[in-house]
Amino acid sequence: MSLPETRRVLSIQSHVVSGYVGNRAATFPLQVLGWDVDPVNTVQYSNHAGYGQFGGPKTDPAQLTAIFKAMEDNGLMRPSRVLTGYIPGSEALKVVAELVKQLRTLAPSLPYILDPVMGDEGKLYVDADVVPIYRDLLLPLATVITPNWFEVELLTEIKLDSLPSLRSALRKLHREFGVRSVIISSIPPGTLELPPSIGIRSHPNNDLYTPDSLLCLASFDDGTSSGPTISRVHTMRVPKIAGYFSGVGDLFSALVCAFFEDELSTQMGGDNGITASSQTPVSLATARAVNVTHAVLLDTERHYLSLPEADRPDTDTEKDKADSSRRPRRMRARELRIIQAIDVIRTGSTALLGDLAEWTDFWTS
Amino acid sequence: MSLPETRRVLSIQSHVVSGYVGNRAATFPLQVLGWDVDPVNTVQYSNHAGYGQFGGPKTDPAQLTAIFKAMEDNGLMRPSRVLTGYIPGSEALKVVAELVKQLRTLAPSLPYILDPVMGDEGKLYVDADVVPIYRDLLLPLATVITPNWFEVELLTEIKLDSLPSLRSALRKLHREFGVRSVIISSIPPGTLELPPSIGIRSHPNNDLYTPDSLLCLASFDDGTSSGPTISRVHTMRVPKIAGYFSGVGDLFSALVCAFFEDELSTQMGGDNGITASSQTPVSLATARAVNVTHAVLLDTERHYLSLPEADRPDTDTEKDKADSSRRPRRMRARELRIIQAIDVIRTGSTALLGDLAEWTDFWTS
Repeated sequence: MSLPETRRVLSIQSHVVSGYVGNRAATFPLQVLGWDVDPVNTVQYSNHAGYGQFGGPKTDPAQLTAIFKAMEDNGLMRPSRVLTGYIPGSEALKVVAELVKQLRTLAPSLPYILDPVMGDEGKLYVDADVVPIYRDLLLPLATVITPNWFEVELLTEIKLDSLPSLRSALRKLHREFGVRSVIISSIPPGTLELPPSIGIRSHPNNDLYTPDSLLCLASFDDGTSSGPTISRVHTMRVPKIAGYFSGVGDLFSALVCAFFEDELSTQMGGDNGITASSQTPVSLATARAVNVTHAVLLDTERHYLSLPEADRPDTDTEKDKADSSRRPRRMRARELRIIQAIDVIRTGSTALLGDLAEWTDFWTS
Repeated sequence: MSLPETRRVLSIQSHVVSGYVGNRAATFPLQVLGWDVDPVNTVQYSNHAGYGQFGGPKTDPAQLTAIFKAMEDNGLMRPSRVLTGYIPGSEALKVVAELVKQLRTLAPSLPYILDPVMGDEGKLYVDADVVPIYRDLLLPLATVITPNWFEVELLTEIKLDSLPSLRSALRKLHREFGVRSVIISSIPPGTLELPPSIGIRSHPNNDLYTPDSLLCLASFDDGTSSGPTISRVHTMRVPKIAGYFSGVGDLFSALVCAFFEDELSTQMGGDNGITASSQTPVSLATARAVNVTHAVLLDTERHYLSLPEADRPDTDTEKDKADSSRRPRRMRARELRIIQAIDVIRTGSTALLGDLAEWTDFWTS
């Protein structure tokens, strides 16, 4: 292996021919932001599983190993960042863990953005034996993780239903698994009672912050604090858009990967005054990633609503059963409009929703 | 199958994790130009074969069939263009031919841009039984083909060494195989004697047109003419850049696919006066594709020359044998700078090399 190149992401995720999940949601935004992407495709499916049916092969662990080995032999295994998403089997996941470990021996500070894709809303969509691999092998290697609410529960084995349980979960992720930056991008509405200072900031889009908003949270642990406060926590409310859109998490983690300024992390860990900043490296990256993701979702919703009603049937399991083309129609209508967002992606502007606000008494309230 | 969507390309080519050939060279430019791309990957290799070694799986014909079938079942097989490149086996190629045939029954005017990737400079790099499949099954379906010099010889079984032999080859492609638009993007220097009017046009970059230039040729047959002149032929000289760069043809055919204005084809076939234009649909698309490709090549060469000499060893088979890292180093240094060309791609400007000029007496001189 040779030294890392500047701005090259090794991205290990799924590939679908049609639609935007996995590497298909991650690659274009990263490229538009000037990153060379080396996309390792863990599967090649016709479309995402939400359609109900799909075709195409998985990449088996031996094939992944062959790809990695040839890249090493050719001096091509030199990412400046690693990003991983949907990796459906435990053996493939072990191959990836071993690779990241090797890369770290050569480049100890290599940032690794880990999206522990395992399930959503209480439903697992990988083999159950994948969970302990994430916990034991992957988490200890990760620089930033972007689990959803359910995945935090799976990783920490803590039922999340209150602020104290969230504190316990974050403590475990930071201190037991050693993850420096944790982003939980969509905490369901009503799960946490927020202090009044959060979400009623002066921002032009304040009318978007309804009680129905999701909460996005970024927690940064520079490893130096002892006592009850173990990390700096920033949050923002994100307006909830009706309906389920696939690939949102994959787009979000790719944007975090692109926007994350790791040098800041190093600086903030030191004693050079930057610790006094109102933001952390992960809160800054999260703000940009949330804003761009939300813009893509708004455009996707706008496009969805512009379609004839027959092309966007509502979510109704009974009706879906009676007409097999109904669910695929809904899925097609809700594919993310990522290619059309090229200019929004390039600006990386936070004008839409603003920045995250620090939740100063998160650990002590 | 449903009706074609606007600006959606089904692109069937190779995938490499690192570097830019096949779908990795084609997808980003098409996306940047506003096309949704459905990339079907015929292989997933670590890198292109020029490195000497590579790892990863082919997608077998049964897997391709499963992908296509699931797309059809989900209403996702609705491209507005088809683009095909490297498809290494004859069985896989037959599956693709069958698909394009089916798509045509639903959308008879669906443009199909076919890059018959078979070899270069006298060397075949697909199975020999692929050649007749291209000839018998694929060519009759193609709207535009972008063969190199060697591939024209393979397809037509005519040895190209003179203007009369090129005329015979073009006649065969247009009239026997029924291809409307033929682009031969790089005819080796000195192969054809050009009339003085070609290549000494008034253009700011005329000093680039050295005797060492390649010739790029676009031939458009609207099917109406009888007599000796069977097509309108446009050409331009393209400055030759020293050294071999992989993926150039794949980038070029993707750009042709993006820039080709098929409506013009239909109009020019009619009796509406547009036939008097100094350009044809394929000469216009070729000009834009050549200009962007050349800009990418110039930036790639500039980058190559900026590297330390140890990182860009010259082409020397003897030395390559003595040091196994030598050839991969050269290949790495010559990977196309496609991601960095985002702005050049978006403009699609022909300012660098200008347009093609009509070779009015091509058929009669």
